[in-house]
Amino acid sequence: MAKEFRQKIRQKNTDNSGFGDNASGRFINKNGLPNVNRKGVNVFNRFSWYHTMLELSTFNFLSYLVIAYILVNLFFALIYYLIGVEHLTGIDKSDPVSEFIDVFFFSSQTFTTVGYGRIAPVGFMASLVATFEAFLGLLTFAIATGLFYGRFSRPRAYLKFSDIALIAPFKNKTALMFRLAPYKNNSLTDADVIVSAAIEVIENSVPKSNFYTLKTQLSKINTLALNWTIVHQIDEDSPFFGFSDEDFKNTHIEIIVHVRAFDEVFSNTVVQRTSYVSDEIIYGAKFIPMYYPDKDNQSTVLNLDKMNHYQQADLPIFQEENE
Amino acid sequence: MAKEFRQKIRQKNTDNSGFGDNASGRFINKNGLPNVNRKGVNVFNRFSWYHTMLELSTFNFLSYLVIAYILVNLFFALIYYLIGVEHLTGIDKSDPVSEFIDVFFFSSQTFTTVGYGRIAPVGFMASLVATFEAFLGLLTFAIATGLFYGRFSRPRAYLKFSDIALIAPFKNKTALMFRLAPYKNNSLTDADVIVSAAIEVIENSVPKSNFYTLKTQLSKINTLALNWTIVHQIDEDSPFFGFSDEDFKNTHIEIIVHVRAFDEVFSNTVVQRTSYVSDEIIYGAKFIPMYYPDKDNQSTVLNLDKMNHYQQADLPIFQEENE
Amino acid sequence: MAKEFRQKIRQKNTDNSGFGDNASGRFINKNGLPNVNRKGVNVFNRFSWYHTMLELSTFNFLSYLVIAYILVNLFFALIYYLIGVEHLTGIDKSDPVSEFIDVFFFSSQTFTTVGYGRIAPVGFMASLVATFEAFLGLLTFAIATGLFYGRFSRPRAYLKFSDIALIAPFKNKTALMFRLAPYKNNSLTDADVIVSAAIEVIENSVPKSNFYTLKTQLSKINTLALNWTIVHQIDEDSPFFGFSDEDFKNTHIEIIVHVRAFDEVFSNTVVQRTSYVSDEIIYGAKFIPMYYPDKDNQSTVLNLDKMNHYQQADLPIFQEENE
Amino acid sequence: MAKEFRQKIRQKNTDNSGFGDNASGRFINKNGLPNVNRKGVNVFNRFSWYHTMLELSTFNFLSYLVIAYILVNLFFALIYYLIGVEHLTGIDKSDPVSEFIDVFFFSSQTFTTVGYGRIAPVGFMASLVATFEAFLGLLTFAIATGLFYGRFSRPRAYLKFSDIALIAPFKNKTALMFRLAPYKNNSLTDADVIVSAAIEVIENSVPKSNFYTLKTQLSKINTLALNWTIVHQIDEDSPFFGFSDEDFKNTHIEIIVHVRAFDEVFSNTVVQRTSYVSDEIIYGAKFIPMYYPDKDNQSTVLNLDKMNHYQQADLPIFQEENE
Repeated sequence: MAKEFRQKIRQKNTDNSGFGDNASGRFINKNGLPNVNRKGVNVFNRFSWYHTMLELSTFNFLSYLVIAYILVNLFFALIYYLIGVEHLTGIDKSDPVSEFIDVFFFSSQTFTTVGYGRIAPVGFMASLVATFEAFLGLLTFAIATGLFYGRFSRPRAYLKFSDIALIAPFKNKTALMFRLAPYKNNSLTDADVIVSAAIEVIENSVPKSNFYTLKTQLSKINTLALNWTIVHQIDEDSPFFGFSDEDFKNTHIEIIVHVRAFDEVFSNTVVQRTSYVSDEIIYGAKFIPMYYPDKDNQSTVLNLDKMNHYQQADLPIFQEENE
Repeated sequence: MAKEFRQKIRQKNTDNSGFGDNASGRFINKNGLPNVNRKGVNVFNRFSWYHTMLELSTFNFLSYLVIAYILVNLFFALIYYLIGVEHLTGIDKSDPVSEFIDVFFFSSQTFTTVGYGRIAPVGFMASLVATFEAFLGLLTFAIATGLFYGRFSRPRAYLKFSDIALIAPFKNKTALMFRLAPYKNNSLTDADVIVSAAIEVIENSVPKSNFYTLKTQLSKINTLALNWTIVHQIDEDSPFFGFSDEDFKNTHIEIIVHVRAFDEVFSNTVVQRTSYVSDEIIYGAKFIPMYYPDKDNQSTVLNLDKMNHYQQADLPIFQEENE
Repeated sequence: MAKEFRQKIRQKNTDNSGFGDNASGRFINKNGLPNVNRKGVNVFNRFSWYHTMLELSTFNFLSYLVIAYILVNLFFALIYYLIGVEHLTGIDKSDPVSEFIDVFFFSSQTFTTVGYGRIAPVGFMASLVATFEAFLGLLTFAIATGLFYGRFSRPRAYLKFSDIALIAPFKNKTALMFRLAPYKNNSLTDADVIVSAAIEVIENSVPKSNFYTLKTQLSKINTLALNWTIVHQIDEDSPFFGFSDEDFKNTHIEIIVHVRAFDEVFSNTVVQRTSYVSDEIIYGAKFIPMYYPDKDNQSTVLNLDKMNHYQQADLPIFQEENE
Repeated sequence: MAKEFRQKIRQKNTDNSGFGDNASGRFINKNGLPNVNRKGVNVFNRFSWYHTMLELSTFNFLSYLVIAYILVNLFFALIYYLIGVEHLTGIDKSDPVSEFIDVFFFSSQTFTTVGYGRIAPVGFMASLVATFEAFLGLLTFAIATGLFYGRFSRPRAYLKFSDIALIAPFKNKTALMFRLAPYKNNSLTDADVIVSAAIEVIENSVPKSNFYTLKTQLSKINTLALNWTIVHQIDEDSPFFGFSDEDFKNTHIEIIVHVRAFDEVFSNTVVQRTSYVSDEIIYGAKFIPMYYPDKDNQSTVLNLDKMNHYQQADLPIFQEENE
């Protein structure tokens, strides 16, 4: 069965995907990141802390900052406490707890350079530590500044992809379709898309993945303001030529999508990727339009909630032309 | 009439504009942004606050900063007031109002980390809130720093377009012309332009827009220092071939312009767009030169106020060559 | 004479220089900026203050910062003084001068948020102004931070061009040569060069400039680490074909050079331009090599001081081939 | 011998390497930087301090900051001391040493703008210097902020190259192979590679380097997530065609590798280079795969420690086809 199936695929596979025959599982995750685990090298060298910080959710990022802030102050509070509260003016010496509380707040007032002065260092050691802590505080906020800027100035495409791809009727033939649209107030131009497919075939009873580049009707547009429906016509040149509903269901298929555009605010190229696997492909359906003229006909409305709206559609009966 | 009108347009339309038949109204606004309203998704996800902050006018941006500053201080002042002024030293306790005024200023002195210390926290709660406020203050200014940098380091083309496009005589034929020039002390090189046209036609009594790419005489220049007049010759290959003054007036036409250049200071590609609709197209006119040699002939003067200066000009009588 | 001179130039001129016939004087200054003065628009809109700040010399930039700092403090000092020194604690009230000096320093301690507190605001007005000044101070330093970063992160090519171009012997013919080299510890790759020439010709007794693209022997190199000698062979396709020493001297010629490369530290394309006019072109000379093997033959030495070293060289006698 | 050796190399050399015949030693160091020493120009103009700061190790960078901080404070402490401690309040005047210690800490409290106020300036001179120091402090931290951001936002490829290149069997022929892989959590796409070779030949008894571009099987891939093995087949078009083990050992050979990719987090092109010289090329060996399916077959594992794992492999006996 694998053999005849192989015959179905006429296009020769051209592997410039960067994934070898031996890779397994989904190649590109839904979020666009490659599905690869790295081993070896030690863990510290395996992560770019800057990439990590940029990819944290805002909530986590802020939480880490607050936690770090508390820990640093506890640490310095301890040091001041060990040096001795007598080296700090204005400490409430009623009991050890109030003492520690006061040195903790002195630490925070130093780290943030607010320095009220109600509590101030007098001895050499306390002053020295405070000198260093204030310096550290400023460097920390210098780094925080960089991270904040890095986070929100990071160019992103802000594209929404349809969750599903369709096998839809198209010009008396069938076509693989999915769509995408920008969902934020960014302005994208010069968009292009590269679509490739990974299809698992059985060769002498070992599964291996072949990669194919999928031709699309329109691979470049000037303005990406409305939704963009990517259409790959399933003709003789398509690896899916002659695929039945079952073929799509029973084969390990992955459609890898790579969109590139120019963001006019960042003045930078932005990239977003996603992929569709077999059970995200719906056979015999077509998308319902998601944009329409404004009531006053003076502008166009794009309804992003309709991204995944589709309806059943009959496909033309497939005819092997060599019959 | 629509039919024969269709015949006038010989060039087949190639839609890679990114706007479908069904879009309506002006496609690209004068300022270059697409004329599209987004619906669906919740409003928070529909805006990139960073894009928004970058596009605010300087005045609005600063106003928001000041307002935020006042609100934050009122908020913290309230908290300190509720905690109780007895937890702050040096407060003027003559009456509630002076008390609130003093806690307000204490808050501001904490938020900005100026911390004179005339007013300083003593109790646990007050100190804790102050600790947090100072931290918040620094993060806020870290973000402000990033926003300021993001705002003024944002690459922009600083191009001025002529408000109007002309149908002018050109080499015994006619041509669509408009011009642009850089108006600031930025230095642009490797400039190119893409011009396309949207023309509304009536097909079986429903209006639809066709898109055409307009050939220009010179679509790339090395140095964009003087004005650049974009010339689209109206010959057999032009969708406007044979258009009369009336045709230009009575048809929904939109000329979409997309200019790209390399800014040597930003070392980045900058992009600017605009569009011209029917009533911004003047039939039978030509531009008056806007640059001339300096009096001493040692340099060239570009007079930006002449951007829109034009004079009437007779057009060659149009001859169908198949006559 | 102009006529026969015209005949000498066989290559048809292709003007994508961005400079029209009517431009005058040198087009590109030695420093690479276009030699154009802008008029019209009001002066504020004609300058990008950010571009201006980035192009200031470090010394001027710092001077402006210091001056601004002093002026701001004088301004606020005046306000505090008018509000009345009784609204500030710890002021030396011995005489008006000492009063003003103290409010001046109070202002600076507020603007920088150092806030010793020896002098501190007590009244409402003074506190209010101080609140605003501290806020302004932080915003100012936020902007300064952005400017500093913008200044030193601005991608630059750091290329040195030879001050002169040579007409040198080359493969039994002659060639126009000039050279360039990176002079800093930046690492440039994928360098390319575009060379064009502006030649003034007299057409019906009015001078006009024609523009020509000059072919070069090697317009792209992988690594720009040593000096790069750009060679334009003067053959039948060159506008300078058959030019004599006099022709070069007596004609308004400008060679416009545009170099682009990729800087690996900035990870950005960097661009540098320059130009050579008639009296910077030396006829009958060749460059002396400026790099040589290190004494131990383990690396290569590039001597930047030799950039302009050349020696006389006889040129092959020019033969019109149609003789 | 040199002569017949020359004959071996059939491909004509095309030098766009940027290195001339006369360069010597390794051209590109293992770390990818060109092996060139610059002379001339004065040393200050020969270094971009920003490039230098960005290339410092984190440890050195922080050390320099700390040292600078201490020196600045010592410097200002000295000034305050010379002005006289009587111009500062709250100084411990027990002895000169404690005095100096106190002015030192006052300086640091001013430079960091922590300004407790326990020590505060009273006289004109002391206040003036403090005013300037606080200003300097803020500018310094503005610069530090920029440097931190510049350092960690600097786009880098984070690629690991195999330490060695192999001459391996490939499709009944032999091929030069080496491999690379990303080792951090960055996401690279659109990767391409340029491979060139420098081969030293003896021409009339002077050694000179010829440069060749090496064709590779696959010079572009979409996703660089797994390891990428670069394969240069040694066929008639290869300069290494017919090279024996001895030829590789006894000839000065350098393989120069230039990899470019697009980093989705930086949204920027990143570049990394390396080179292989004769004794880093192993004859008759092949790489052992370094990635394999995860145990659950749901993803792929890349083991970076296997980067340099290879095994002996017999090469097909070389046949001059003209036999």
